[in-house]
Amino acid sequence: MNLAHVPDITNAALTQRLRDKLDNKTKPLGALGRLEDLAVQIGLILASETPSLVEPQLVVFAADHGLAAHGVSAYSSEVTWQMVQNFLTGGAAVSVLARQHALALTVVDCGVRHDFAPQPGLLVHKLGAGTADSSCGPAMTTAQCQQAIATGQEIIQNLPGNVLLLGEMGIGNTSAASMLLARLTGQPVAGCVGAGTGLDAAGVERKCALLNQVLALHHAALTPLEALAAFGGFEIATMVGAVLQAAAGGRVIVVDGFIASAAVLVARHLAPAVTQRCVFSHRSGEHGHGLMLSTLGPRSGEPAQPLLDLGLRLGEGSGAALAWPLLVSACLVLHEMASFDSAGVSRKTE
Amino acid sequence: MNLAHVPDITNAALTQRLRDKLDNKTKPLGALGRLEDLAVQIGLILASETPSLVEPQLVVFAADHGLAAHGVSAYSSEVTWQMVQNFLTGGAAVSVLARQHALALTVVDCGVRHDFAPQPGLLVHKLGAGTADSSCGPAMTTAQCQQAIATGQEIIQNLPGNVLLLGEMGIGNTSAASMLLARLTGQPVAGCVGAGTGLDAAGVERKCALLNQVLALHHAALTPLEALAAFGGFEIATMVGAVLQAAAGGRVIVVDGFIASAAVLVARHLAPAVTQRCVFSHRSGEHGHGLMLSTLGPRSGEPAQPLLDLGLRLGEGSGAALAWPLLVSACLVLHEMASFDSAGVSRKTE
Repeated sequence: MNLAHVPDITNAALTQRLRDKLDNKTKPLGALGRLEDLAVQIGLILASETPSLVEPQLVVFAADHGLAAHGVSAYSSEVTWQMVQNFLTGGAAVSVLARQHALALTVVDCGVRHDFAPQPGLLVHKLGAGTADSSCGPAMTTAQCQQAIATGQEIIQNLPGNVLLLGEMGIGNTSAASMLLARLTGQPVAGCVGAGTGLDAAGVERKCALLNQVLALHHAALTPLEALAAFGGFEIATMVGAVLQAAAGGRVIVVDGFIASAAVLVARHLAPAVTQRCVFSHRSGEHGHGLMLSTLGPRSGEPAQPLLDLGLRLGEGSGAALAWPLLVSACLVLHEMASFDSAGVSRKTE
Repeated sequence: MNLAHVPDITNAALTQRLRDKLDNKTKPLGALGRLEDLAVQIGLILASETPSLVEPQLVVFAADHGLAAHGVSAYSSEVTWQMVQNFLTGGAAVSVLARQHALALTVVDCGVRHDFAPQPGLLVHKLGAGTADSSCGPAMTTAQCQQAIATGQEIIQNLPGNVLLLGEMGIGNTSAASMLLARLTGQPVAGCVGAGTGLDAAGVERKCALLNQVLALHHAALTPLEALAAFGGFEIATMVGAVLQAAAGGRVIVVDGFIASAAVLVARHLAPAVTQRCVFSHRSGEHGHGLMLSTLGPRSGEPAQPLLDLGLRLGEGSGAALAWPLLVSACLVLHEMASFDSAGVSRKTE
């Protein structure tokens, strides 16, 4: 596996120039709150005092999960392909939000159990017809896992622009994400498992018991790549490659919810500086996302601070799309706001 | 004073139709979280299952405050007119954000201590050259207060569209808002006072002591209108009229931060159903806004749930503008998302 280097973007001088620029804008110091932090972060990622977000790409990675046969989701696996078709036809939440914000939408079939007709906006990079059932053996082979990551890298290399917004679809994929979280953080599975698309309490309890069994079966899968192969899924592994490539290529990465964060969690183990490029769009309503975010800050041990907290638990990239205009605003503040001098506004009296 | 009736918009049948419509969209039940509540609220305000937001108007109410002479702000009073000019020239945060989202921006001079040249986007409705010093007597007369409210009503009657986004500017106006909050909720002033544009701890302490004196001086100003006249300001009183008229006219009202919320607090005392039409855009970094929001829910005793929590403390309508795309998204979800039936997606397995 050929992982491009992801350099640390810490840059005290540029940070200071960005802060000074913001402090000279016609507003009280820090009065735009976290929008100012966001402007600084985007400036650092794009290495500019006047960063511009160009041709943002919302990519939805989709695949099926063998474990879904055990009823870990409130929906059956066929919903994966039906929703992929819905994304492409334009009727899904992410389709609507991508249109609203003029985000280019690409759906990647990473291993959906369905053969799609060729159509605009669809890339087919199947790693298999869904992962294997992780309660019997690894979800994928080491070779499939490496191929998925390479595919994710290649997909991003071929997309224009300097922003990647992450989305995903895959009935059963909160289970994979929960197990990755539990294994890579060492936390008990109960704190990592939630209702997903809408299990009731008894369903969550059954899911939790099953995931504990699967984790026990794969007790030896300790490294990030071993865990990724053991638990899946193809869409998460492909997203790991996409995150690594986007980071190596200096793109801004807008992270959606629980599943997309799981891909970042794996990628971060492979290249710690990826989280410096990540803007976490929202705190999901999925139980376990708070725990996951607490490990994904720009520096090790710091929590990630998501922009929105609206109880979303849809995935698809819907949260990333909803937060998108805030990134645009952060850049426009740097570009277009007047300074105290240029506007002839008096500074603070002191 | 001629207050138009603000009817209660509670409508169980329409609420149910909106919820059913959302539940039939291709997503797990409730998976769009608070965006779904927002869609229902907008549907109720606009009395439609397919609400459309038309010609949104961001109106910035500006005026000066006599109390500002006592150093209750980190900026001098002349910054009020300089910022008004900056709004109109296009260099302020709210100018940039209004352009980003194609919001019509109008600035109302409700009593700025400056004579502006006529220019596009400026309405001059001066109630005086700033309010009187409320530490010596009432900030305004009863007649001025009533005139301000009537002016606010008239301004909204003359604006097109079905959405009002509230903004304000006035050096010293967090003091007026804090005193309105303290008087109308009966809370100790310490919990109602913050740093405003950036006072240090000693400054906040001095501000707090002064506001306590002013509150004591006006101990008999107990009704909302008496309190409004006693503490000011002209921009808050005009905004009260605007809120009342927007609510009576069935508009969606997007509330900005601490000062705009204070106007809603007063308006709510005059017409309780106004808060049903209010979308609270954000939780401000200004100390006291949390307390204020806790009293401004759609029904008495319920807290208001703001959409964003980004530590903003700028005013101008900047928070309202930042939250705006979420309102658009909520409507687009109702309009454009496919249903399970129309998209051929299988429902939850149970």
